[in-house]
Amino acid sequence: VPKEIKLALLGFGNVGRALATLFQSKDKELQKNWGLTCLVTGIATNSHGIALEPKGIPIEEALEIIQQGGNLSRLSSGDSAKDSLDFIEKCNADVLFENTPVSYDTGQPAIDYLKKALQMGMHAITANKGPVVHAYRELSALAENHHRSFLFESAVMDGAPVFSMWREALPGANLQSFRGVLNSTTNLILTLMEGGKSFQESVTYAQKIGIAETDPSGDIDGWDAAIKIAALVTVLMNVPLKPLEVKREGIREISKEVIANGLERDKRWKLICEAHRDSDRVSASVGPMEVDANDPLFNVMGTSSAITFQSDVLGPLTLTEEDPGPHTTAYGLLADFLHAIRSS
Amino acid sequence: VPKEIKLALLGFGNVGRALATLFQSKDKELQKNWGLTCLVTGIATNSHGIALEPKGIPIEEALEIIQQGGNLSRLSSGDSAKDSLDFIEKCNADVLFENTPVSYDTGQPAIDYLKKALQMGMHAITANKGPVVHAYRELSALAENHHRSFLFESAVMDGAPVFSMWREALPGANLQSFRGVLNSTTNLILTLMEGGKSFQESVTYAQKIGIAETDPSGDIDGWDAAIKIAALVTVLMNVPLKPLEVKREGIREISKEVIANGLERDKRWKLICEAHRDSDRVSASVGPMEVDANDPLFNVMGTSSAITFQSDVLGPLTLTEEDPGPHTTAYGLLADFLHAIRSS
Repeated sequence: VPKEIKLALLGFGNVGRALATLFQSKDKELQKNWGLTCLVTGIATNSHGIALEPKGIPIEEALEIIQQGGNLSRLSSGDSAKDSLDFIEKCNADVLFENTPVSYDTGQPAIDYLKKALQMGMHAITANKGPVVHAYRELSALAENHHRSFLFESAVMDGAPVFSMWREALPGANLQSFRGVLNSTTNLILTLMEGGKSFQESVTYAQKIGIAETDPSGDIDGWDAAIKIAALVTVLMNVPLKPLEVKREGIREISKEVIANGLERDKRWKLICEAHRDSDRVSASVGPMEVDANDPLFNVMGTSSAITFQSDVLGPLTLTEEDPGPHTTAYGLLADFLHAIRSS
Repeated sequence: VPKEIKLALLGFGNVGRALATLFQSKDKELQKNWGLTCLVTGIATNSHGIALEPKGIPIEEALEIIQQGGNLSRLSSGDSAKDSLDFIEKCNADVLFENTPVSYDTGQPAIDYLKKALQMGMHAITANKGPVVHAYRELSALAENHHRSFLFESAVMDGAPVFSMWREALPGANLQSFRGVLNSTTNLILTLMEGGKSFQESVTYAQKIGIAETDPSGDIDGWDAAIKIAALVTVLMNVPLKPLEVKREGIREISKEVIANGLERDKRWKLICEAHRDSDRVSASVGPMEVDANDPLFNVMGTSSAITFQSDVLGPLTLTEEDPGPHTTAYGLLADFLHAIRSS
């Protein structure tokens, strides 16, 4: 008999919806290979209401309601919740997937949601970087005390197994430094500028296809990259590092003439993220750099990302991800879920 | 109190010696982070005798004896073993590391050694591909029956976590196809030929620096690559595939003129390994191909290797390894060891 697992989705935007769809398409596999029957028993949104249904919410109906701009509360049979914390208290789930808008200065309100979930005995899984850079140790300790998992694979490079490769697949290895292209938006902009577009034209195009945000400064000025660097250093090097401690320079100063000039010499401009350990200290930076044609990051184009790790036991090891999207972020959340189940 | 773990090294060539050295340098970390005290209680060689010492063999002395062409048996205190199987029976270890010369047609005698070790209740760990392509299911079942592990991370791409990334870090993902550069020797030869050396000059150079073997045909004719493909398909796609079922072409026909002609058009020749699943069947091949400058394999130079995976949940995911050597193979064996301990 498969074990029934109740899932609560806090946040039902692109990623939350892709996750619900992924759970649907993996339904039979999860039963057969993992002995799990997964039931979404709660969905909470900001502008489309909250659904609580212990018998399981019909996902297709929920997706349709969102598409038609309706309210999910009509899928609730009994209890109603007044806000997100109330939702976490009442959802009675085994796992909380937290995918809500977050403040990168504080990691809130995501941190409070994840804390509450762990305190209620749920596994707490997020795609947000904020809780990792602002509360990694606290949330990890809380998870351990409650014999639950706090996981966040999709916070960096979407579903590519950056955190889990180190946690699960490279035992006994010590990370000494890394170097990568971790921000998709700026890499796409630089790629478009290689094609002759101006900086502003490239930003506008990236906004039009839904890659860049209305206010693109978080990406362009290197903030998103700095937060990712801080998350990687905090977790993989076990040295708490705040985004403000990352030396940071964005790509505003890189003109299409500068890029064309590089290409003539067979070089490309990339927004390079770097960190290296020097005994107990870690120095980290993000900034535009010209890279050679034989650099492992030279061919990372468009929305792709890549990271090269230097450790005490292997030569340079590079992980490259192409074609990211909400579905790959959703896979990172599913992978976290299966890790949590496997280790509980 | 750290738990004492007894290690037996069957084979003490470059890899076995690098592993012994790695265990030495990781000694304190293994005690502190894993609660393990590791003791090498047996070393068996083909031409330098066998040492059995339940209290632990002094590694530096053993390395010195080998360097001076001596016999390890003088490090034995009690028992002596007459051959490898006898060694496995008498070594009384918790883990056997098997690194002996293997027949790629049969996987022997490695398979018999690994079987014996598992039957004696040891974890069985090897860097050999032969046992994987010829006895993966049998050895895995035997390991499961004895609640031990049969692991072989270093069989493909040395210590880069190819097998463990799929086993440990990508739960719920299904591998649909892969494409890679998996043979270091041919990739080095092709790189040297780009520099203007002839095929024969490149082979000779690769032999001189210890990368190519005296008879280089196993690499040059694509056999090594075919065996690696068969190992990956057998394990990661769960479809037993024999090396002879891999469509195979080597690099003998690629002249330096052909390579120069490709470079003029900004293309490189690579020995490409490919496999893709088509419902229950897998078709696989290895052969020289011209790759474009924007191909993820274009920049894999010298002894580096790389593999791009296509799955049902992520976009193309590429793992690239640079600077391989006996020490990275040794790390793969150590990682297998820690996986075995973690899951037992």
